[in-house]
Amino acid sequence: MYGEDRIYKKVEIIGVSRTSIEAAVETAVTKARASLDKLSWFEVKEIRGHIGEDGKVAEYQVAIKVAFQLKG
Amino acid sequence: MYGEDRIYKKVEIIGVSRTSIEAAVETAVTKARASLDKLSWFEVKEIRGHIGEDGKVAEYQVAIKVAFQLKG
Amino acid sequence: MYGEDRIYKKVEIIGVSRTSIEAAVETAVTKARASLDKLSWFEVKEIRGHIGEDGKVAEYQVAIKVAFQLKG
Amino acid sequence: MYGEDRIYKKVEIIGVSRTSIEAAVETAVTKARASLDKLSWFEVKEIRGHIGEDGKVAEYQVAIKVAFQLKG
Amino acid sequence: MYGEDRIYKKVEIIGVSRTSIEAAVETAVTKARASLDKLSWFEVKEIRGHIGEDGKVAEYQVAIKVAFQLKG
Amino acid sequence: MYGEDRIYKKVEIIGVSRTSIEAAVETAVTKARASLDKLSWFEVKEIRGHIGEDGKVAEYQVAIKVAFQLKG
Amino acid sequence: MYGEDRIYKKVEIIGVSRTSIEAAVETAVTKARASLDKLSWFEVKEIRGHIGEDGKVAEYQVAIKVAFQLKG
Amino acid sequence: MYGEDRIYKKVEIIGVSRTSIEAAVETAVTKARASLDKLSWFEVKEIRGHIGEDGKVAEYQVAIKVAFQLKG
Amino acid sequence: MYGEDRIYKKVEIIGVSRTSIEAAVETAVTKARASLDKLSWFEVKEIRGHIGEDGKVAEYQVAIKVAFQLKG
Amino acid sequence: MYGEDRIYKKVEIIGVSRTSIEAAVETAVTKARASLDKLSWFEVKEIRGHIGEDGKVAEYQVAIKVAFQLKG
Amino acid sequence: MYGEDRIYKKVEIIGVSRTSIEAAVETAVTKARASLDKLSWFEVKEIRGHIGEDGKVAEYQVAIKVAFQLKG
Amino acid sequence: MYGEDRIYKKVEIIGVSRTSIEAAVETAVTKARASLDKLSWFEVKEIRGHIGEDGKVAEYQVAIKVAFQLKG
Repeated sequence: MYGEDRIYKKVEIIGVSRTSIEAAVETAVTKARASLDKLSWFEVKEIRGHIGEDGKVAEYQVAIKVAFQLKG
Repeated sequence: MYGEDRIYKKVEIIGVSRTSIEAAVETAVTKARASLDKLSWFEVKEIRGHIGEDGKVAEYQVAIKVAFQLKG
Repeated sequence: MYGEDRIYKKVEIIGVSRTSIEAAVETAVTKARASLDKLSWFEVKEIRGHIGEDGKVAEYQVAIKVAFQLKG
Repeated sequence: MYGEDRIYKKVEIIGVSRTSIEAAVETAVTKARASLDKLSWFEVKEIRGHIGEDGKVAEYQVAIKVAFQLKG
Repeated sequence: MYGEDRIYKKVEIIGVSRTSIEAAVETAVTKARASLDKLSWFEVKEIRGHIGEDGKVAEYQVAIKVAFQLKG
Repeated sequence: MYGEDRIYKKVEIIGVSRTSIEAAVETAVTKARASLDKLSWFEVKEIRGHIGEDGKVAEYQVAIKVAFQLKG
Repeated sequence: MYGEDRIYKKVEIIGVSRTSIEAAVETAVTKARASLDKLSWFEVKEIRGHIGEDGKVAEYQVAIKVAFQLKG
Repeated sequence: MYGEDRIYKKVEIIGVSRTSIEAAVETAVTKARASLDKLSWFEVKEIRGHIGEDGKVAEYQVAIKVAFQLKG
Repeated sequence: MYGEDRIYKKVEIIGVSRTSIEAAVETAVTKARASLDKLSWFEVKEIRGHIGEDGKVAEYQVAIKVAFQLKG
Repeated sequence: MYGEDRIYKKVEIIGVSRTSIEAAVETAVTKARASLDKLSWFEVKEIRGHIGEDGKVAEYQVAIKVAFQLKG
Repeated sequence: MYGEDRIYKKVEIIGVSRTSIEAAVETAVTKARASLDKLSWFEVKEIRGHIGEDGKVAEYQVAIKVAFQLKG
Repeated sequence: MYGEDRIYKKVEIIGVSRTSIEAAVETAVTKARASLDKLSWFEVKEIRGHIGEDGKVAEYQVAIKVAFQLKG
């Protein structure tokens, strides 16, 4: 496909997971797939998290940019 | 709601107002509400403005990222 | 139009072209026009490219933010 | 005082206010004064906010760095 | 005017005001107008401030870049 | 709690763990809890690590900012 | 000339051209030469552009810093 | 060793792994060891990934800088 | 190839050309090919240039990062 | 000590000295030692200075982050 | 003077010196004084240098922003 | 030499010295000369340091990028 004129769009999604950074990324990718065209790659932009009443990490919040090809 | 798998989307909106930075933010938030799901938070990314013929600030242009939860 | 309350949206598009950075920008702008409202300006965010089997630049990949006015 | 050896410390405080960015800065400065030595200057680092159930800006959250002189 | 070759110059000005961020921007723009050609737009680069003896915000110091067209 | 004037403080902590990035974050959060008020959220700022004599990753060092509410 | 005490000044100029990024840089350099001392080098800081009524790139706007030696 | 004149070199390596960010870092460190002198530490610079035909994360691509001491 | 453990190395090269930014990129890629393994992609990091005695752009200097796969 | 779970805290200190950047760093480190636990390393974040009535550099102001280990 | 409306201008100057970073800063400040109003402070933006034919540091080139008050 | 097609390579070196930032830069440049082609310029990227058991600065660690011309 390299060498052909084409365009991609990037959108920013935040995935949230209780267990890990990777799980948060995968939540974002899996759910984004429902409303977006065929996804191509992602870039992690920000890793944050919430700390619960018990003083422990309650969840990871990972902002990613997801890219997918647009039909011309 | 903390601790559940979920995703948010962030979109970048520029609000414009003659009066203040806050008014520009509120214009962006209020008008974005018409086309986007329930908004959750915003982050100011850029503050610019136009200077009129009379050499005074004619308007504030404030770029914000607005986040809202996506249904999975 | 300056001085009136209004909002713009910015989306991130990657244009790809074999020939030049400008051609990649123009591919992105031209194709984005199909699905987006009247475009207003762009900002170049990233310039990358692919190198082919022959060790030459096979294509330029230029990420731009494209802005367009939203109806309030 | 310029020209004398001395040190300052900077701490990061987030002030929250319903009304404006300046009010959020002033909340942060006023309340920080209770626990910190004589404050000297501040630098705005981040402007964010929460959007309420009614889709309007519910509050401004402004992160500032506040500097104050330490006794040597 | 779009589409014609032309150049702009950007200079960095810090406006200071006791009352608000917008007033600091407007001070910078109004006073810069005295020595610069017709101003066109501004970009906020930095927001800082001084804290007075009484522990309150004494002034806002806002660094902006101001752009104006140069005659070719 | 949204909509009330309040302030938070952010401090920068580096957590170290032999096993994973998440474990380093959790070490930082758990130990910080001992000396800080009720923690609210964290932001990952830097991920580094040490490589041991055997040429393998010996530990992950993750710098986070931890935020907690200050009593006014 | 290396090894001698001397100073340079950098100013920020935006060149505009309908045809290409290089043409915008060259417009900026050529016109800046009229009012500035002997120019030495430039650094590209920002590439933006305007999109015309027809949805095509109407012009490239390239912000550069231009450096020139000041007589001591 | 602290306090002695010495130099280090940093090189940028991208490790790829199907399973996790840590596995990608460890792949990079382990394989870099083959061609580089005794490695000392790493810094994560970028986390990206590829999304497969099935819309799931196919691999993590983690760019790290790896540092090692040079013999003087 | 996606989905297999592998590593890439990125090196920073500055290409210089009298004619254009693209020509500078291509000079960098073509000459780097002589001493490096099969190149895969590049990222533009910096665009600068020299201004000649005649006040015109004498050359474009473009810093790119070039990536190539390392054998494990 | 590498390989054990532990945490560090980083605080931001500005050292001021009339003579040099290094003297400003050393002022910050020496005075910070009085109120902080055993210091471990520093990172220079900002170098500024004041210019006196006579138009000469009156002092160097160097902001550093200082890290020290916290007891768990 | 704090608390009064006023404006400053910042200009970017590169000072060059064979001996040290501080000497380069002082060269820039001293020579800038000739053409600019009363200088107030400086901020170091970039430290570079030239390496001579003998492979040693031939000079330090330090870019600073110098600020001075403008008469309103 | 300006105006001819050519390429440079930049590598990142950390020099360490007990005495000063300049000495750390010069250590890096002098030792890098042993294994690299004719060096051309350097750019300071990071200034850090180690604090000794006695609570004083034990050494300066300065990361620089060193550039040298590659034969085409």
